[in-house]
Amino acid sequence: MRPSGRNLSECRPISIETGVTKHAEGSCLIKVGDTHVLCTATIEDRAPSFLKGTGLGWVTAEYGMLPRATNSRTRREAAAGKQSGRTQEIQRLIGRALRAGVDRSALGERQIVIDCDVIQADGGTRCASITGGWVALRLAVNKLLKSGLIASDPLLDHVAAISCGIYAGQPVCDLDYAEDSEAGTDGNFIMTGAGKLIEVQMSAEGATFSRDEMTRLLDLAEAGVAQLVTAQKAALA
Amino acid sequence: MRPSGRNLSECRPISIETGVTKHAEGSCLIKVGDTHVLCTATIEDRAPSFLKGTGLGWVTAEYGMLPRATNSRTRREAAAGKQSGRTQEIQRLIGRALRAGVDRSALGERQIVIDCDVIQADGGTRCASITGGWVALRLAVNKLLKSGLIASDPLLDHVAAISCGIYAGQPVCDLDYAEDSEAGTDGNFIMTGAGKLIEVQMSAEGATFSRDEMTRLLDLAEAGVAQLVTAQKAALA
Amino acid sequence: MRPSGRNLSECRPISIETGVTKHAEGSCLIKVGDTHVLCTATIEDRAPSFLKGTGLGWVTAEYGMLPRATNSRTRREAAAGKQSGRTQEIQRLIGRALRAGVDRSALGERQIVIDCDVIQADGGTRCASITGGWVALRLAVNKLLKSGLIASDPLLDHVAAISCGIYAGQPVCDLDYAEDSEAGTDGNFIMTGAGKLIEVQMSAEGATFSRDEMTRLLDLAEAGVAQLVTAQKAALA
Amino acid sequence: MRPSGRNLSECRPISIETGVTKHAEGSCLIKVGDTHVLCTATIEDRAPSFLKGTGLGWVTAEYGMLPRATNSRTRREAAAGKQSGRTQEIQRLIGRALRAGVDRSALGERQIVIDCDVIQADGGTRCASITGGWVALRLAVNKLLKSGLIASDPLLDHVAAISCGIYAGQPVCDLDYAEDSEAGTDGNFIMTGAGKLIEVQMSAEGATFSRDEMTRLLDLAEAGVAQLVTAQKAALA
Amino acid sequence: MRPSGRNLSECRPISIETGVTKHAEGSCLIKVGDTHVLCTATIEDRAPSFLKGTGLGWVTAEYGMLPRATNSRTRREAAAGKQSGRTQEIQRLIGRALRAGVDRSALGERQIVIDCDVIQADGGTRCASITGGWVALRLAVNKLLKSGLIASDPLLDHVAAISCGIYAGQPVCDLDYAEDSEAGTDGNFIMTGAGKLIEVQMSAEGATFSRDEMTRLLDLAEAGVAQLVTAQKAALA
Amino acid sequence: MRPSGRNLSECRPISIETGVTKHAEGSCLIKVGDTHVLCTATIEDRAPSFLKGTGLGWVTAEYGMLPRATNSRTRREAAAGKQSGRTQEIQRLIGRALRAGVDRSALGERQIVIDCDVIQADGGTRCASITGGWVALRLAVNKLLKSGLIASDPLLDHVAAISCGIYAGQPVCDLDYAEDSEAGTDGNFIMTGAGKLIEVQMSAEGATFSRDEMTRLLDLAEAGVAQLVTAQKAALA
Repeated sequence: MRPSGRNLSECRPISIETGVTKHAEGSCLIKVGDTHVLCTATIEDRAPSFLKGTGLGWVTAEYGMLPRATNSRTRREAAAGKQSGRTQEIQRLIGRALRAGVDRSALGERQIVIDCDVIQADGGTRCASITGGWVALRLAVNKLLKSGLIASDPLLDHVAAISCGIYAGQPVCDLDYAEDSEAGTDGNFIMTGAGKLIEVQMSAEGATFSRDEMTRLLDLAEAGVAQLVTAQKAALA
Repeated sequence: MRPSGRNLSECRPISIETGVTKHAEGSCLIKVGDTHVLCTATIEDRAPSFLKGTGLGWVTAEYGMLPRATNSRTRREAAAGKQSGRTQEIQRLIGRALRAGVDRSALGERQIVIDCDVIQADGGTRCASITGGWVALRLAVNKLLKSGLIASDPLLDHVAAISCGIYAGQPVCDLDYAEDSEAGTDGNFIMTGAGKLIEVQMSAEGATFSRDEMTRLLDLAEAGVAQLVTAQKAALA
Repeated sequence: MRPSGRNLSECRPISIETGVTKHAEGSCLIKVGDTHVLCTATIEDRAPSFLKGTGLGWVTAEYGMLPRATNSRTRREAAAGKQSGRTQEIQRLIGRALRAGVDRSALGERQIVIDCDVIQADGGTRCASITGGWVALRLAVNKLLKSGLIASDPLLDHVAAISCGIYAGQPVCDLDYAEDSEAGTDGNFIMTGAGKLIEVQMSAEGATFSRDEMTRLLDLAEAGVAQLVTAQKAALA
Repeated sequence: MRPSGRNLSECRPISIETGVTKHAEGSCLIKVGDTHVLCTATIEDRAPSFLKGTGLGWVTAEYGMLPRATNSRTRREAAAGKQSGRTQEIQRLIGRALRAGVDRSALGERQIVIDCDVIQADGGTRCASITGGWVALRLAVNKLLKSGLIASDPLLDHVAAISCGIYAGQPVCDLDYAEDSEAGTDGNFIMTGAGKLIEVQMSAEGATFSRDEMTRLLDLAEAGVAQLVTAQKAALA
Repeated sequence: MRPSGRNLSECRPISIETGVTKHAEGSCLIKVGDTHVLCTATIEDRAPSFLKGTGLGWVTAEYGMLPRATNSRTRREAAAGKQSGRTQEIQRLIGRALRAGVDRSALGERQIVIDCDVIQADGGTRCASITGGWVALRLAVNKLLKSGLIASDPLLDHVAAISCGIYAGQPVCDLDYAEDSEAGTDGNFIMTGAGKLIEVQMSAEGATFSRDEMTRLLDLAEAGVAQLVTAQKAALA
Repeated sequence: MRPSGRNLSECRPISIETGVTKHAEGSCLIKVGDTHVLCTATIEDRAPSFLKGTGLGWVTAEYGMLPRATNSRTRREAAAGKQSGRTQEIQRLIGRALRAGVDRSALGERQIVIDCDVIQADGGTRCASITGGWVALRLAVNKLLKSGLIASDPLLDHVAAISCGIYAGQPVCDLDYAEDSEAGTDGNFIMTGAGKLIEVQMSAEGATFSRDEMTRLLDLAEAGVAQLVTAQKAALA
């Protein structure tokens, strides 16, 4: 029934390659099916000014798509002179999600910037950005720990994200673009390695949904995130 | 336990006054406690260009805050030269929520723009904008029906929204600013008059949450939205 | 002869309600006929940097219109990405007018920002903003005096403004939108409570005017401003 | 008493050189003392879209200052990314003033753009722009008449402008920068060749002014504009 | 003598991988040493409006750098709200260079957009963009030829580019970042497969250069471009 | 053969008038045929922040064109809200060229800003800006030397620029607009008084060029720059 022939609960193949750029403090190229995102982590000595003197650190994210990551070319945001509302919404989400897994006191007054740039898009780019962004963050934090700049690990748990939705009347996991553009309801579930919820975003444009459907989507998300966390661990091993 | 002395499931007083500006096709001033939002509906003859020839209409929203709607003055976005990411995220949410309750085919190829301007803010401005925005939309659609420009009612059901969150370890309903700025987890629930879900947005910055907590928040939201729908009906009666 | 049936020298009904928002240091909602403007005053601890070390304070103003304050919807300036030339011209005028009534040395090195947001427009919004803005300024200054932060009253006199013009060949007072859009010559007179002139702006697009007409417009303005000052006093009593 | 040693009613020397650029349909370099403005007129085949089908033409103006036209360098507006509020206010004034002397029906559905670029500034640049801009406009209209594109002269009369103000307690004419920056009250008077008023802008920042002072300033302006009109005629002879 | 230990005339290793994204009509990832650029070609049905009715096509380019392509993070241009002067200069150069190798009449009234996004930077990104951009262009044109949309090949010859400069007093070929940032004179040579010149840009900030040095740099460039053209041919074979 | 009737190696008449504005530390109006550029130099006490503590100075340039400097009116960049890519490229070139002739250590930690504003354009505006800009720079530096603010002359040699290109198959010198818009290859040569090269920019849009043609263009440029340097000397004598 799914355009890709997958089972309702079947995720796309996941690959995470680390150390893909020589400059960044942490980096990976995450591929979730045909969605490919390059994630880099940059450590900055200073936290944003609103944290001055608090002893707390910050993690933030920026998101971009190469113009031809998509089926038809998308206008370059730098040329358009601003980031779209969609881009801003996504990068706020990525930053918020990653911060939820960080002990900002242990990080100290510094900032880590996660850049997520979509090389090729086929649905689920914000979820792949979070899952890959966490790997880049982990690598950068490892560098801080190894150098002795911080004493204890500020990362509380893995953070990963998956999209789920109702496609052709059925709850399905890890929507690709063909499903995403047709789904009546879809959303994103961001969870920790231990299965706790960080963010739930379910949204209906075409049709409303029931609490029962919500429950079934949460079940799918739990199973999907578990697979992503396994892939994160393998990539970092 | 709540700063306002309210019970965990107690909403703030709701007031919706209609017909507050002489120019708009529909308007109301919604007050949810000390949060006051002026909502107007403008009917435009044409739908956006991407709908040309489809026979479908569109509902969109814009959101703004007067500079001194807040405790300390917020910089005017027109002076800053752009809408913040937060503003864009909110107005995209309002538009998406209202569209979920519209039969766009029955609306025909026209657009209704809902402007939500916050006169005074005390938490929950986006939810009040949705609840009040729907009333303005209802009034504008009534005008279209009365004039004979459309034949059947494109509004499928009421749409209303409420924020819920975990404050001081307890699930609470309709957070005010004092609670909102302290809550470990909070979010917005947008529902129809019949209790179906349109959008769920739960987000944790400080602490993750469990599926059990999610269930209790959904219970609170259902009860809260029911009260808002009752207030909408009373205002329109 | 006037669309509203008013006499040539008759102003519209004036209402000024103070204390309309809980956050601002001073606020009022001024209604001049169907023109409604919300004015708030914000006290800031610091004067602009060009005044550093001078001991002088500053009063400035910002002006905005809600998109549907007008008969057909006006594009939101925050969405357009800039304030129009008209907006900038108006807010520069409001600030200049209010400063003319302030002893900036008595105010000390602080700034008061007056925000004037037009809720509903029917001509004369800049004049209503000045008249209402002065009331908000007065209330904020009262707070400073009461708190002991300043010792002597920096407000030298009332400041109020009225539009006058030549409509259908006749000098008339307090033009509404129907008159404003047809007047050959119109302009604004800003005066003190004692009847001294602060600013005169008379402008002809369609037809030039004579010194004699100028004199008759000044006579109308004097009488009109006197009524506005009476309304300011009543609102503050 | 005046820094320049001029009498209270004495204007600065005026020079208007026409035909200073080879491309423009009309051009002049106007020098009022040390204030030098290059004015060009461009004829465009089409009127702005809001005039389509009306048979009416339009005259508009743009104003700029070279960065080092001033005593200390002013930031280039193109580099700053926007025209200041002051610039917009000035160019709106120039356009409005020139249009007041035009029979837009006789001009037909075309637009004339007047560019006023200040090469060197010493006070009164907006007035010099209007006086010189009218000469450029006259020359461009002459070209239209000569080519037969229009049948009757759309220029109703000369338009010229002068600044007057109260300097050191005395009404003075044609303020230079040294006076302008010290004047308690100053403003601009725009008049026709026949002495009719087009625009009056008197503004007090430091001190208010009386109706009697207003009368004396109008007297000075009348005499000053008469001299400017004489200079315009000489330049065009 | 060179930081990399290369001979004066030795280029860095070149690798060009084609078909790296599934959406673009042509694509490659070019690696010149540690400089990695992703190049994609997009075919658009329409030429820019200034070519309407001429029968001529257009090739244009856009250039970007991922924020962490560089040693320290560079601010994202989309977030900054504009493309830097450097970016605009580079993308104008790429477009101009590629167009010089195109028979725009044979291309017909369509546009091909070349996007060059730097994944990792180590000097010479604009040259790598031109060399890789031509491969993406070649692949897209092949698609047009194969589909029968165009009848004859619009590509006249290969186009490739190399930087040369005077480093530590010696002319060297293909500067990496360590050399680029120290070179007294450097520049770019863009040539065809047949060795004709398309563009020469030599620039001295620190020290001027002689005609004799210019001749030696041209010799180096000729040899370097020949190697790049060989690599292009191999990648396309 | 040339539209102007000039010989292949014949430059246009050159005139350089110094001291044309009363405010700038150095200024000239340079006329190269019908291309007229006003160049001013502004001395600023501080160098850009990236030079703080280095003891080095900076020279930078900004370039602009009056809207009607061109045959048809060009949109004002301040109104458009940004400088075009062309403008940025030109002003970066002017700054780079002038800096190549400066001993920045002798200049000390200050900045000189060269503003080049095109009053009338007929091809070669960037070259005229460099040649005239150097004269303004020379005058400003003379003022620094005379005042004793700097001890030794930071200007190493004259800097001047000329365009050359291949027009109708023949190498020609100092292209005017009629030639520039038709030339298959053209470019700019920036040289010192001693004939050393600072920058070479040759570019082919329509047709490629050979090394032999490059040599002949360099010969033309050498002769042309020598004439410009003679004119600079005469103007400064």
